[in-house]
Amino acid sequence: MSELFIYNTLTGKKEKFKPRHKGKIGMYVCGPTLYSEPHMGNLRTFINFDMIFRYLLHLGYQVKYVRNITDCGHITNSAGLELDSIGLAAKAEQMESLEIVYKYNSKFQDIQKAYNLLRPSIEPTATAHIQEQIEIIEKIMENGFAYVSNGTVYFDVNKYVKSNPYGVVSGRKIDELLNESRELQGQEEKRNPADFALWKKAQSEDMQIWRSPWGDGNPGWHIECTAMSTKYLGEEFDIHGGGMDLKFPHHENEVAQSCGAGMKNPANYWMHANMLNVNGQKMSKTFGNYFLPFDILEGTTSIFSKPFSAQVVRFFMMMGHYRSDLDFSNDALIAAEKGYDRLTDAFLKIGKLTISETTNIGKEIKEIRDNCAAAMNDDFNTSKLIAELFELATLINKIDSKTIHASQEDLENIRKLVQDYFVKVLGIQFENGTETNSQAMEHLMQLIIDIRKESREKKDFATSDKIRDVLTQAGIELRDGKDGTDWKI
Amino acid sequence: MSELFIYNTLTGKKEKFKPRHKGKIGMYVCGPTLYSEPHMGNLRTFINFDMIFRYLLHLGYQVKYVRNITDCGHITNSAGLELDSIGLAAKAEQMESLEIVYKYNSKFQDIQKAYNLLRPSIEPTATAHIQEQIEIIEKIMENGFAYVSNGTVYFDVNKYVKSNPYGVVSGRKIDELLNESRELQGQEEKRNPADFALWKKAQSEDMQIWRSPWGDGNPGWHIECTAMSTKYLGEEFDIHGGGMDLKFPHHENEVAQSCGAGMKNPANYWMHANMLNVNGQKMSKTFGNYFLPFDILEGTTSIFSKPFSAQVVRFFMMMGHYRSDLDFSNDALIAAEKGYDRLTDAFLKIGKLTISETTNIGKEIKEIRDNCAAAMNDDFNTSKLIAELFELATLINKIDSKTIHASQEDLENIRKLVQDYFVKVLGIQFENGTETNSQAMEHLMQLIIDIRKESREKKDFATSDKIRDVLTQAGIELRDGKDGTDWKI
Repeated sequence: MSELFIYNTLTGKKEKFKPRHKGKIGMYVCGPTLYSEPHMGNLRTFINFDMIFRYLLHLGYQVKYVRNITDCGHITNSAGLELDSIGLAAKAEQMESLEIVYKYNSKFQDIQKAYNLLRPSIEPTATAHIQEQIEIIEKIMENGFAYVSNGTVYFDVNKYVKSNPYGVVSGRKIDELLNESRELQGQEEKRNPADFALWKKAQSEDMQIWRSPWGDGNPGWHIECTAMSTKYLGEEFDIHGGGMDLKFPHHENEVAQSCGAGMKNPANYWMHANMLNVNGQKMSKTFGNYFLPFDILEGTTSIFSKPFSAQVVRFFMMMGHYRSDLDFSNDALIAAEKGYDRLTDAFLKIGKLTISETTNIGKEIKEIRDNCAAAMNDDFNTSKLIAELFELATLINKIDSKTIHASQEDLENIRKLVQDYFVKVLGIQFENGTETNSQAMEHLMQLIIDIRKESREKKDFATSDKIRDVLTQAGIELRDGKDGTDWKI
Repeated sequence: MSELFIYNTLTGKKEKFKPRHKGKIGMYVCGPTLYSEPHMGNLRTFINFDMIFRYLLHLGYQVKYVRNITDCGHITNSAGLELDSIGLAAKAEQMESLEIVYKYNSKFQDIQKAYNLLRPSIEPTATAHIQEQIEIIEKIMENGFAYVSNGTVYFDVNKYVKSNPYGVVSGRKIDELLNESRELQGQEEKRNPADFALWKKAQSEDMQIWRSPWGDGNPGWHIECTAMSTKYLGEEFDIHGGGMDLKFPHHENEVAQSCGAGMKNPANYWMHANMLNVNGQKMSKTFGNYFLPFDILEGTTSIFSKPFSAQVVRFFMMMGHYRSDLDFSNDALIAAEKGYDRLTDAFLKIGKLTISETTNIGKEIKEIRDNCAAAMNDDFNTSKLIAELFELATLINKIDSKTIHASQEDLENIRKLVQDYFVKVLGIQFENGTETNSQAMEHLMQLIIDIRKESREKKDFATSDKIRDVLTQAGIELRDGKDGTDWKI
């Protein structure tokens, strides 16, 4: 059995994974800011970390998976401005900030259900951890790495870099950052443009204001993750993840905050999931080329010629490695749908395959299983994993056409492979009913068809009539053909 | 069209409902304390307020429905002790308090989905509103209705009653309360046993501690509802609801807190939903006769002979008026299931009925519609509403048997009645359709169980053995009991 290797942003290399505590993993992933419905690009990140969470569980780890919800704070937008996006959205909809968050969190929860994401261990919110944030800022102040300017507390990057490395996550060069001279609103309060707010002085238009030792205000954006990861996972834990776009400034500043507060770089492994492209261009609200996770299910986005199921979309996402670019296009989705159908058609046949006494495929099945594990152990390479599942489908089809033979044990092993890797690790479901029901149904129907055939041969018409009546009642139709009897609800 | 009358706990009478602002309603309902999974008795309250929410929406109101989640605080238990139930549960499960709340809130959200509850406008949490609670306590202090004793802030009931009425919600006599002399832990700090904590001094074992002007501590139980109802609905709003058991001390103290803070009795209408009985005894964790909302769906509670669907359970609850006792028993549920089947069987026929040119039932349909409205306007009398829906089912069956005739318009009106009152107001869904697979499965399994029995009687062991083997392969277990054979995947 191979060992798990994870690409660590800190080193730019795939490293052998070693948890801090045997058998246990602490993982923190930056969650959504809920001032609007998360778009498909956001969802890709969460689906990828869901897959990572699932694989770690599959390996037998006890995983504490913390993914926050940002429900306050000033977030740096793509223009470098720090905006209270939630407050702005709340004003536009004439609601309180947390009403907006509740509205979009409800939607986010529905999305996760539709796309079959497992719930994290906890989804803590920034507003429920204001005091924890204040306490960490106090420590940073005590250590001299922050200063108050006009009621706002800034992290003093210039001072920090004298005794600490900066740029460990993002690879940014501190000299360039310190000499950057973009003119931005509020910059005049900072000692250096690279400094960032830990606590912002309340503005009259702010919708959420809290008391603090530095006067009324609200937290900066980065501090909530430091506070909540420390609270739920401790000062040091195993994996910190998020979207690629969070490397800088968000994750860089998380490390600075932790170290500035007298702790350490919180995570041993920093993982970053790649963005989503649409027809070659990065999906973003700014570009207007985004669509929502329910749009594609309902067929209401003009980018696609038809609706696609959540299972197909998830399968499509899993076809790409989490660190690779992934391009959403109509052709790519159509192709993914065909692939999904090919796999599930094969997998649903397993229950109907003929069992042989002799077998010659034990070695092949073991090879596929080893390859599946190796693919996932190679930095969660779902792309390679799916290639192996196609091999498995080919094998099943060969058994079905009696080109090769499989024993009861072979079939059990095949079934387990599908359950483990397709259903549990990739998190993909069968669209036809639930898989269990469908598989059980296949067995039952084959049994009934056999009994019906036998009872006819034995001229036991009482039984065959009864079978006919019950099937009619159950809405099941039998179709006798030259290859035997088929059925349909 | 009759007008809506609501039974107001404040007056003990049904009063004509008049919202504070034309067309708009603000409603606050006390939600669950999530240190464990809400039991069926808790759910009855939430289902009843869901029905009330639905009817107000049906009447065309814009309803802002706030239902809180208690995720901290010391709750008075049945013995009169104030306990940090969440902290205790968190310690037992070796988690942080908010991890416990997240765990059970996830379950609570799943329950609501299964039982078809609409989401409120917001479910605010106490921990995200600590500052709002502190601010109200400060106002009460300023007004002289609270005092600090050993780091804990108490509401001064004795002082309050000199200028304010107390007992307006619960009808409790203040003299009796002031003279009550139960010896309880911590009572020695109080000036009077009737005083209650607004802010509790932190204890070393507390899991959630916040800073306050009175030192480190955590909020009392009642103050969160005053803080959150004021924040999201204003100082005065239309309806305040909750379970009957919350009248005292919780709701009584909410009124005292609002008035003590210089506001008013917050709600014009106080509504209380009745508890649930099981075989004649009140459902309660203390009595051990409680079961969980998923238990009854899965058939894992010994109180019932079989599983019941969420639709049947909800229908059963709606058969009782929200202020009446409701007794959960096997016989009552079986009867409700029959009633549910009778109604849905009839309603599902509507699309198949013969349309006549002539009609003589327009008047009858209008009468049923008026009676439905009258029933609901009479303090949400779902019991009477369901009686009218049975009338409607009878009418449909008569049309079906061609005893009477219906025009296209009649059928449209009937369909609308079903949609409006059965689906939207009562919140009940049709089971048939989505459950095709499960139902077909039931038929197949019953057939197989019969064939197995017959083959055994005929000593056709080849067949009974084959059945056994296939079922094992399909993962289906048969259990022979005295009432026949049961099965389980």
